[in-house]
Amino acid sequence: MTKPLFNKIALIGIGLIGGSIALAARRGGLANKIVAATRSEETAATANRLKLVDHCGTDLAAACQDADLVIVCTPVGACGEAARVIAPSLKPGCIVSDVGSVKQAVVDAMQPHLPAGVHFVPAHPVAGTENSGPEAGFAELFDGRWTILTPLPDSDPAAVDKLDAFWKGLGSLTDRLDPAGHDRILAITSHLPHLIAYTIVGTADDLAGHLNSEVLRFAAGGFRDFTRIAASDPTMWRDVFLNNREAVLEVLARFQEDLFYLQRAIRWGEGDKLFDLFTRTREIRRALIHLNQA
Amino acid sequence: MTKPLFNKIALIGIGLIGGSIALAARRGGLANKIVAATRSEETAATANRLKLVDHCGTDLAAACQDADLVIVCTPVGACGEAARVIAPSLKPGCIVSDVGSVKQAVVDAMQPHLPAGVHFVPAHPVAGTENSGPEAGFAELFDGRWTILTPLPDSDPAAVDKLDAFWKGLGSLTDRLDPAGHDRILAITSHLPHLIAYTIVGTADDLAGHLNSEVLRFAAGGFRDFTRIAASDPTMWRDVFLNNREAVLEVLARFQEDLFYLQRAIRWGEGDKLFDLFTRTREIRRALIHLNQA
Ligand SMILES: NC(=O)c1ccc[n+]([C@@H]2O[C@H](COP(=O)([O-])OP(=O)(O)OC[C@H]3O[C@@H](n4cnc5c(N)ncnc54)[C@H](OP(=O)(O)O)[C@@H]3O)[C@@H](O)[C@H]2O)c1
Ligand SMILES: NC(=O)c1ccc[n+]([C@@H]2O[C@H](COP(=O)([O-])OP(=O)(O)OC[C@H]3O[C@@H](n4cnc5c(N)ncnc54)[C@H](OP(=O)(O)O)[C@@H]3O)[C@@H](O)[C@H]2O)c1
Repeated sequence: MTKPLFNKIALIGIGLIGGSIALAARRGGLANKIVAATRSEETAATANRLKLVDHCGTDLAAACQDADLVIVCTPVGACGEAARVIAPSLKPGCIVSDVGSVKQAVVDAMQPHLPAGVHFVPAHPVAGTENSGPEAGFAELFDGRWTILTPLPDSDPAAVDKLDAFWKGLGSLTDRLDPAGHDRILAITSHLPHLIAYTIVGTADDLAGHLNSEVLRFAAGGFRDFTRIAASDPTMWRDVFLNNREAVLEVLARFQEDLFYLQRAIRWGEGDKLFDLFTRTREIRRALIHLNQA
Repeated sequence: MTKPLFNKIALIGIGLIGGSIALAARRGGLANKIVAATRSEETAATANRLKLVDHCGTDLAAACQDADLVIVCTPVGACGEAARVIAPSLKPGCIVSDVGSVKQAVVDAMQPHLPAGVHFVPAHPVAGTENSGPEAGFAELFDGRWTILTPLPDSDPAAVDKLDAFWKGLGSLTDRLDPAGHDRILAITSHLPHLIAYTIVGTADDLAGHLNSEVLRFAAGGFRDFTRIAASDPTMWRDVFLNNREAVLEVLARFQEDLFYLQRAIRWGEGDKLFDLFTRTREIRRALIHLNQA
């Protein structure tokens, strides 16, 4: 047996992502010991019942004692406070990371709390489902999906490489971006689609009142997919939008422009404009399938 | 063996929907003979090679000779011309229907051509995929999904009931609405979601140029679903938007309003407004799951 990458891993927060990391890390034999700590007794009890980790408690600082890798797996808005609480118990040389869907705001919130001698390497696994909580975790979540590491200019290269190896061990493909670049890209590929799905399901629900709820019953393909996306965790997504405001507002403005263009084409019966866009988007799907990310 | 519902069925157009009707009708033993006619030699050859029907040609009128049920399965914009071409060969008492995603415009386009003595009963199976063409058809497409019949005030009740029984025989649940009511409901549950998906994938593609195409590679859950929807057939969807203009523009205006409300909440950091909507939409998903339409 080869030596595991880490002796002890501590996960702060153990929902969909934390739970999946625990299961995938065990599957890959990446640590001798995996512990977790979460906010509520209830979630801790569930994590222990499901045996996601060796032990899950509610004392965040205690869980981090002697850990070689600490990953904060809470909603983005809770990362700063988590860093503040665990900071005193981080051992020198420990790698601290996170999984937040937004990176610059998390860096700004966590970094000031972290002591010198600790290696901070933020990361984001671009993989998820609409489910949340410890029961939602599964070992295969990251298989074949991308995880983006967003090291800081002064991140220790050896620590970055080690975290990279860890994510590969979880089944992920890995790449590196700077935090702000990450946030611009995810604003369009993930944050905006979620905002739109939430909006349209809300609009439909309002109309359903007027239309005697028949709207829901005749949910066609498109709408069904939107309702699934719009069933994602409210806290997580509120935090994403509040913490990636500028990038989301910018892509939203572009989207609005493009939508008005199509709205005008519909009003004036300009079928060619619709047909041209609909043909182009078809190609994009083919490209995604080609990249194995469809 | 019970007697099939119809002796001869003719399908005008044999792509995803026509092909699936043919396969499901055979599975259900709903006709003694099923023929089809389509615009191109190529599609006819494919339909014959796949044995979707007893025979597929390119002479629309000839296919309808002696048919007891004729279903026009072309894009919405081609339904009127198809009705004009087949009208002279429709036998008295024949039921004529369609599968268009828009109903009022199809009624307006087809009805003037149809001779007296023929029973016109428009319908729309609310079931589909992003694939098109005869290879895309499969017998299970309609199982457990709704088909909406939109009979006209003077539709013969016996003909409506017979078409209803036919769709149940294809595996579908059935209901009835007036054409304009259908168009308003589908505008929000199907047409708007498709328009939005096309738009956002186009916006992302434009941004991908600026962002060195990394956008595509890091396509997360939300965006992947949108690309699938935005891979739907350009002709079909152009026709839907051109033929359901008023209803689509109306729901689009509501959607824009709701989106601006969220945009403003993001700009001003009003997390509660986001959280409230995101919680409400989660319930809608649960309701859909409850209705077995998730
Ligand atoms: N879901 C996705 O698709 C996805 C994908 C990629 C990245 N992410 C990111 O992953 C992170 C976690 O998401 P998730 O889906 O795993 O969420 P989740 O299933 O809801 O789990 C969240 C965990 O964080 C804990 N937590 C919540 N608020 C907290 C607070 N104020 N202080 C301390 N702990 C708190 C929860 O504890 P209790 O249950 O004990 O309250 C729970 O253990 C988020 O930053 C999200 O942006 C999510
Ligand atoms: N796709 C869905 O998800 C869905 C769901 C419910 C209802 N519908 C409705 O079903 C209908 C057909 O959709 P589909 O997905 O089956 O389309 P499809 O797979 O593209 O098939 C269309 C068929 O119509 C023929 N056609 C196209 N243009 C024609 C024209 N100008 N004149 C004569 N025939 C023509 C095609 O013939 P050639 O190939 O020979 O040119 C082909 O046989 C549309 O009205 C659509 O609104 C679609």
